Amino acid sequence: MVGSYGPLPSPGERPFIVEVRRGAQVESRHAVIAAVVDADGRLVAGWGDVESIIFPRSSNKAFQALPLIESGAADAAGLSNAEMAMACASHGGEARHTETVAGWLGRLGLDHTALECGAHWPYHEETARDLARAHALPTALHNNCSGKHAGMVTVAQHLGEALQGYVSPDHPVQRRVTAVIEDVCGVRLLPDAFATDGCSMPTMALPINKLAYGFARFVTGQGLAPERAKAAKRLAAAVLAEPFFVAGSGRFCTAVMQAGGGRFIAKTGAEGVYTAASAELGLGIALKVVDGTARAAQTALGGLLEYLGLLDNAARDELRPLVEPVLSNWRGLRVGDIGLEPAY
Amino acid sequence: MVGSYGPLPSPGERPFIVEVRRGAQVESRHAVIAAVVDADGRLVAGWGDVESIIFPRSSNKAFQALPLIESGAADAAGLSNAEMAMACASHGGEARHTETVAGWLGRLGLDHTALECGAHWPYHEETARDLARAHALPTALHNNCSGKHAGMVTVAQHLGEALQGYVSPDHPVQRRVTAVIEDVCGVRLLPDAFATDGCSMPTMALPINKLAYGFARFVTGQGLAPERAKAAKRLAAAVLAEPFFVAGSGRFCTAVMQAGGGRFIAKTGAEGVYTAASAELGLGIALKVVDGTARAAQTALGGLLEYLGLLDNAARDELRPLVEPVLSNWRGLRVGDIGLEPAY
Repeated sequence: MVGSYGPLPSPGERPFIVEVRRGAQVESRHAVIAAVVDADGRLVAGWGDVESIIFPRSSNKAFQALPLIESGAADAAGLSNAEMAMACASHGGEARHTETVAGWLGRLGLDHTALECGAHWPYHEETARDLARAHALPTALHNNCSGKHAGMVTVAQHLGEALQGYVSPDHPVQRRVTAVIEDVCGVRLLPDAFATDGCSMPTMALPINKLAYGFARFVTGQGLAPERAKAAKRLAAAVLAEPFFVAGSGRFCTAVMQAGGGRFIAKTGAEGVYTAASAELGLGIALKVVDGTARAAQTALGGLLEYLGLLDNAARDELRPLVEPVLSNWRGLRVGDIGLEPAY
Repeated sequence: MVGSYGPLPSPGERPFIVEVRRGAQVESRHAVIAAVVDADGRLVAGWGDVESIIFPRSSNKAFQALPLIESGAADAAGLSNAEMAMACASHGGEARHTETVAGWLGRLGLDHTALECGAHWPYHEETARDLARAHALPTALHNNCSGKHAGMVTVAQHLGEALQGYVSPDHPVQRRVTAVIEDVCGVRLLPDAFATDGCSMPTMALPINKLAYGFARFVTGQGLAPERAKAAKRLAAAVLAEPFFVAGSGRFCTAVMQAGGGRFIAKTGAEGVYTAASAELGLGIALKVVDGTARAAQTALGGLLEYLGLLDNAARDELRPLVEPVLSNWRGLRVGDIGLEPAY
C-alpha cells in the first residue's frame, strides 16, 4: 500500500467530503465538519461551520470520567488502567470487557443490576452470536457504556450518594459531570442543550470547536485546575496503556491508538462524531459527519490525523483497511471503497 | 396521532432534508434527491439534481425479473405470486422466505448451491439469533437477494443456458437484464455505468429521473412492447398480492404496500435508494439519500407518497412508526425522532 489518505482540502467554510465509491462512480457522499483547536482556544484548522452545535455523545466519555479520578473514588476502588479505560469506553461487549466490568463491580459489592444503562446485544458480532448459541441474553454488562456507568456508580458509592437514579440529570453524579464539561470546554450549558443519550444519561449539545478546545485542555492540562489536569492526564495515560478496553477487536478507536503509539487519544461518538487530542502538539480535534454515519467518521479522523502529521508511514498503512476500507460483497469480491474525496 | 408528514418543501433545485432530532436539537441531517416522473418522461416534481447518476441497487429488482416472465420460465416452473414477489425482493431471511426459495429451487431439481449470491446472516434479527441458537450458519437462501437469484437460475435453466456463472456480466441472463433496463428506463448504459452489487450481480448506474421514468412505464405499460407491458403488470400484481415476500416483518417495503392497499408498489435499494410507482396516477418515483442512509429513505418515501395523495389518513397513521420513528434508548425511553425538516 502506498500514498497518503486524501489529502484533505484546504481548511475553509466548506465541510470536507468522504466518498463511498462503487465501480467507476461515487455512490454516496458524507459531509464532515471538523475543528482543530489549541489549548488557548485558537482554531488551528477548520472545515465547515465549526460553531455548529452537536451532541458529543460518547466522544467525551473521558470528560465524564474525570470525577471518578478527582473524587478519589478510583483510588479507593483500586481501579486498574484497564478499568479506568473502560470508564472512557464504548466497548464491543467482548468477554474481556464484560468480565472486567463484572470484576470491578464485584469489588464494590455490586453487580450488573446496579447499572442503569439498559442491555443490548454486543456490538462485537461473534460475541453476540456466541451469546445466542449459549441461549443467553445480554445484560447491562454488554452495553457498550457499561464501563462509564460502573464509573458513575463508583463515584456515587464513594461519596455516599444514592446509587439508584444516578443517570438522572438532577443526581449529584450528573450535576458534577455537567460542571466538568462546562469547565473543560469553556461553555455554559443552557436547558435546551440537554438531551438523553442511548444509555439513559444526559448528553449535552455544544459547539464543535468547544469540544475540540476541551480535548486540547484535557491532554495538555493547560488552563485547568491542577487536580483536574492531573486527573485528565491519568485517564489519558490509562486509555493509551489499554486501548483494547476503550473499544475492542476490529474497532477503530482501539486500532488508531495502537497505531499512534501514544501520540494521541481518540474516541468515537454515536451519530458520526469523533474526537482526538495530542499532548505533543497541544491540539484537540472534534468532527461531526453531518448525516451521522460512523463509516465516514473514521475515514475523516484518519485524514485529520495525517493532516496534523500524527501518522507515520507504518501507522498509515496499518490503519488503511479501516480509513480507506475496501468494500467487498457477500462473496468477498471487491466492489468499491471509501475514502476522502480527491482534491482537484 | 395526527397531522401530515412534513409537508415537503416546494419542488426545486435543492434536495429536501430528513432530520434526526434529539431533545431540542437537530442531531443529524440527510439530503434527499427525488424525482416524480410520468410515463412520457415528464418531470412532475423534483428536488435537487434529478439527473444525478445513482446505482439503483435492489430498487429495480422488478426490472431484473422481467425476463423471468417474458421468457416463459415463470410459467414453466409454475411460480406462485409469492415466488414471483421473491424474485423482486430484498427479504429478511425469515423462515417463510427461505422455505419458499428452497421449495422453488427444489421443483427445478436444484438447491441453494445453485445460487451465486453468497451467504449472509438474515437481516431479520430474531431469525439470525435463532440460527445461531441452533448452531447453524446462514446459506445463500438467507441472502436477501436469494429470490432474485432463483429467478435468474430459473431463466437460465429454461433457456438451456449455463447455470454456473449466471451472475457474470457476459452471461446471457445478465445481457438480457441490461437490455431490459435500457429499454424500460430509456437509457444507453456505457461501460463506466457497470459495477458489482452486494450479491455479485451487475448493478448499472443511471440518472434518478430515468429510474423514476422506468417505474412509470413499468406500472402503466405505456411505451413498452406488449409482452413486456404484460410481464410488468403481472410482477406488479404479484408484489401487491404478497408484500410480505418482498421484504418481511417490520420492514418498510412490506408495510407501505400493505398500507397503500394496492395503490402503489415500492422497493428499497441499498445506500439510501427507494423507488415506487402508481398505475393509478401513472407516475414513477425514485429517490436517493445522498449519504446512503436507509433510515432517511423511508421517511423520504413516506413524505413523497403523501405529497402525491397516495396515503389516506389510516395509512399515514399506520406507517407513522416507520416514517416518523420515535428514537428510544436501550431502556426504551424516548430520546428523539426522525422526520422531514419542517418547512418555514
